[in-house]
Amino acid sequence: MKEKTNTNINIKTLAKTLGISTGSVSKALKDSHEISEETKRKVRELAAKLNYVPNPYASSLRKQKSKTIAVVLPEVADSFFSLAINGIEAVMEQKGYHVIISLTHELFAKEEKILSDLKSGRVDGIIMSLSRETADTNHIKALQDKKIPIVFFDRVATSIDATKIITDDEQSGYKATKHLIEQGCRNIKFLSISDELAITNERYTGVRKALVSYQLNAAGTLVKCVVNTEENVQLIKAVLTSTDKPDGLIASVEMLSIEIYRACRDLGLHIPADIKVIGFSNLHSAPFLDPPLSTITQPAFEMGKAAATELCKMLEKKNVQPHTIVIPSELHVRVSSLRT
Amino acid sequence: MKEKTNTNINIKTLAKTLGISTGSVSKALKDSHEISEETKRKVRELAAKLNYVPNPYASSLRKQKSKTIAVVLPEVADSFFSLAINGIEAVMEQKGYHVIISLTHELFAKEEKILSDLKSGRVDGIIMSLSRETADTNHIKALQDKKIPIVFFDRVATSIDATKIITDDEQSGYKATKHLIEQGCRNIKFLSISDELAITNERYTGVRKALVSYQLNAAGTLVKCVVNTEENVQLIKAVLTSTDKPDGLIASVEMLSIEIYRACRDLGLHIPADIKVIGFSNLHSAPFLDPPLSTITQPAFEMGKAAATELCKMLEKKNVQPHTIVIPSELHVRVSSLRT
Repeated sequence: MKEKTNTNINIKTLAKTLGISTGSVSKALKDSHEISEETKRKVRELAAKLNYVPNPYASSLRKQKSKTIAVVLPEVADSFFSLAINGIEAVMEQKGYHVIISLTHELFAKEEKILSDLKSGRVDGIIMSLSRETADTNHIKALQDKKIPIVFFDRVATSIDATKIITDDEQSGYKATKHLIEQGCRNIKFLSISDELAITNERYTGVRKALVSYQLNAAGTLVKCVVNTEENVQLIKAVLTSTDKPDGLIASVEMLSIEIYRACRDLGLHIPADIKVIGFSNLHSAPFLDPPLSTITQPAFEMGKAAATELCKMLEKKNVQPHTIVIPSELHVRVSSLRT
Repeated sequence: MKEKTNTNINIKTLAKTLGISTGSVSKALKDSHEISEETKRKVRELAAKLNYVPNPYASSLRKQKSKTIAVVLPEVADSFFSLAINGIEAVMEQKGYHVIISLTHELFAKEEKILSDLKSGRVDGIIMSLSRETADTNHIKALQDKKIPIVFFDRVATSIDATKIITDDEQSGYKATKHLIEQGCRNIKFLSISDELAITNERYTGVRKALVSYQLNAAGTLVKCVVNTEENVQLIKAVLTSTDKPDGLIASVEMLSIEIYRACRDLGLHIPADIKVIGFSNLHSAPFLDPPLSTITQPAFEMGKAAATELCKMLEKKNVQPHTIVIPSELHVRVSSLRT
């Protein structure tokens, strides 16, 4: 099937075939005024005939520009990220940038590997959202040392000086908790997938503030989950059958909501009669779940758009100081969190 | 924020600083026997001190290998594709390949642009699934002419000679239709998003064969949908209120199932009493929808794994003739398609 790839047509082949220098071929292809129209025509015709394609590596070595940006994300199964990608691409398409996506699958080691690969100038800029494991940020600093522009969105690196697009995570945690308390909950648990992520900590801070302001006990509120669905379902079932059984659950990421529904089905518990549920989620199917899921819906598309817009400013060498943009999330109350 | 990138450390800097030739530096970094251990040590120490990273473009020019493969897909909002990516990455991670993902957003022009960019050797190989618009395949042939290995999965190019990973689309269409007929449906419509895709045509062939084998009329069975959610909901509502009102719907892609649920909610129709629904879908939430959605579930993860495994064989220059692998889908019967 596969033959050697060095049979590719390059500038040397064109030059040799036409009996002119490689420099002249290169200039002719760039429509330089130094080259006669006759020669340009010949070069173009031969290039077309031989299906010549400029080598991007050689070209990038000269120009130090790839017209490509990388989006580094934990995963795409979460609707938040797939919507954010659409926002990023909407901007980048207009600006003529290629977008390549690399996934960390929530692994710090993988994130390090991806960034190390990008360090060598494969892309002009990076938009990223951290893995759940990321605590150390030396791999990010190494990229900034190389002057590669980076914009963070959603899962941002607190210790890094960079432009960041976030939502109002603390207020959202507060709002979700306040809503559950108003619907009658007195023992609320917050399901988290990370000790490291700023967004999770912000949301949890909001949860605790709401509990405290309603004079409820905030001890034992945090439940640490994992990335494996089966394990999470078991873990949630253990929480729901413990002596400290909650009457309200807040899912900090989309997948956890479905895992709560699974655990309740297995245990024969009814949402919202036995347990009220609200999830951070952009799930299209949320209104059609049984029961419809109350959500904190993040402005995923808008956050992607803002991240891309800020990165473009940096790529265009506008004098942009690192800053943070906050786009608020929305509470959508549906049946899963209502007083019965 | 951003400064010129030509301040990067390169082999020339190392050579100049150490007072040796660039060739010697290059050989030293490759641990060549031509270079003394003393010099190698000095080069390595300086490289580490200055945080030198080999330029992948320069390196790729020499080696013609990027150790990167591209996955070209219509979108990631569909669970099928996000699961397939996980399958691809599971294999490629083991083989030490970087995976970059590029999205066509179902646009042929975008697909052409992405492939044209990849034509110049940026990646070692490509795994792809076509956009809903793709009818012409010259952009794919151009890549094959460049000897870049390509493996297709799910949405394959019929006219292209390449290894293809598919599922049993015709049988799945047949099975879904047979099931609906057995549950009492007599007027079934198949919602499609493309006239071009082989998978859609295969599924539709299966639908028609089932109708014919049960002596039902196959005329007017095909309903052409679009990619915009709002438009689809309107379109489905028009079908459900027409004089040729169906009693069973088959959604050929995941998103269409949720759009059917929305249309039914808007019209006050009950699933499955008023209309039975089955969808091609890998949606995690399918069992928790109201009512639980019957699905044809594709082996997404396995198809991704198979595509990656086949591409690796080609990259390792094993003598692989183009072939097709079929991995069957499964019918999961839930409430949405049951006789009431």
